[in-house]
Amino acid sequence: MKSFASWCVRVYFEDTDSGGVVYHANYLKFMERGRTEWLRGIGLDQAELKLKDNIMFVVAKLDIQYKRPAKFNDELMVMTSLEKIGASTIFITQEILRDNYLISSARVEIACINSKLFKPQRIPKKIKQLLEKL
Amino acid sequence: MKSFASWCVRVYFEDTDSGGVVYHANYLKFMERGRTEWLRGIGLDQAELKLKDNIMFVVAKLDIQYKRPAKFNDELMVMTSLEKIGASTIFITQEILRDNYLISSARVEIACINSKLFKPQRIPKKIKQLLEKL
Amino acid sequence: MKSFASWCVRVYFEDTDSGGVVYHANYLKFMERGRTEWLRGIGLDQAELKLKDNIMFVVAKLDIQYKRPAKFNDELMVMTSLEKIGASTIFITQEILRDNYLISSARVEIACINSKLFKPQRIPKKIKQLLEKL
Amino acid sequence: MKSFASWCVRVYFEDTDSGGVVYHANYLKFMERGRTEWLRGIGLDQAELKLKDNIMFVVAKLDIQYKRPAKFNDELMVMTSLEKIGASTIFITQEILRDNYLISSARVEIACINSKLFKPQRIPKKIKQLLEKL
Repeated sequence: MKSFASWCVRVYFEDTDSGGVVYHANYLKFMERGRTEWLRGIGLDQAELKLKDNIMFVVAKLDIQYKRPAKFNDELMVMTSLEKIGASTIFITQEILRDNYLISSARVEIACINSKLFKPQRIPKKIKQLLEKL
Repeated sequence: MKSFASWCVRVYFEDTDSGGVVYHANYLKFMERGRTEWLRGIGLDQAELKLKDNIMFVVAKLDIQYKRPAKFNDELMVMTSLEKIGASTIFITQEILRDNYLISSARVEIACINSKLFKPQRIPKKIKQLLEKL
Repeated sequence: MKSFASWCVRVYFEDTDSGGVVYHANYLKFMERGRTEWLRGIGLDQAELKLKDNIMFVVAKLDIQYKRPAKFNDELMVMTSLEKIGASTIFITQEILRDNYLISSARVEIACINSKLFKPQRIPKKIKQLLEKL
Repeated sequence: MKSFASWCVRVYFEDTDSGGVVYHANYLKFMERGRTEWLRGIGLDQAELKLKDNIMFVVAKLDIQYKRPAKFNDELMVMTSLEKIGASTIFITQEILRDNYLISSARVEIACINSKLFKPQRIPKKIKQLLEKL
């Protein structure tokens, strides 16, 4: 079974634009909140990881589709599921839902990098094991 | 020849995150500035379009690749080029460069919608002609 | 007794800047989340208010002091308390805390306006009563 | 004579909210762009300052008044003027204008801090001289 998590996000004025709906770039923020909470949920502390191991996870590629607009006050659910783990890349699928309607979906490639050099590095074994545990 | 435009963007603190580089979602803002200025450059006023014709252009799909990080104070160039125009969709290619180095690139599908109904609608002929002019 | 509310906010990468701490403008977002949830808590639906009564509450004046920096992953508490209600203005005091340490504090003047005309208008009696209830 | 600068800002969708106007917190971003360009204009490179001297300038206090709403596509002028320099604090007055109409105005206290310790420190003499030059 793959690692999976859901996270609830409320839409505030800060998230909307004058089109009356959530600004398209802000769904990427919601998705990152989902990934952050997913990592926290499996015991991965990104702040500690950077400080102690000089490891950062950064978005290398992101394909997003916008299906329905979300509005001020909406309660959205961010679904995050692990698709595959490579040597230095994690492949994730994310969906944002409102009452089971798909608002947007994305496929995200996360690269493991050295935070000082900003160069790719292998995902440490202990992290791989945490990610694959579920 | 295809419609094409470049637009200069300066990186401020607001654009960065604690990783020390531009926050990944903010490149989408830079790219939208590039598209807005490109449309302005060919004589398309989006505010007027919404008010008079109930027409809005929204992002329907976006595939972005992050190649190099950008930092505070960087001067970036956003390149926007029209790839193809469909009945109700515009396909655009965008690149963000710093001194000719590729920072990120994206393919963006823009849908023409009715701003009241939030439903797809055909791109009006006069707009198609403006877009194809170059 | 005065109306009062607290709301928990988690700091994500989107909130930070390359100084390594929360970007100063983003505390205003946290404070607005606090006010939105406070209004929701007393039964005020801002989306409905705009749609049905053409009423919007907007920030007219804001004095903020930054005491300590907040960081990625911090859990912050936003405290919102009603100070005074005028004819068309609401005076609010807000504090952001982390483990009882003051991160920032603000005094906010909220103006009641007509959402079509963007002009000040008297706060409707039913809203005043809701605000004064506690 | 006091140091003074103006900087032009265009309003994009990213800056607006579903109220149809610029989101209140985003004026703080515009003002910071104005301060950044003002500092750059007098020869102060903040990136270098942090790297070489461990010095950062951060907002310690900000009082802002919102007079008129700004909208998508507006061209705004950010006026920045130095009011006073203290031992470790700079007092600045800023105004945002559209066609000579006042959109918002602010008084900002900037603290000079050590970027490692996040503690106040005296403004170095060479910087004081640069700031007072005009």
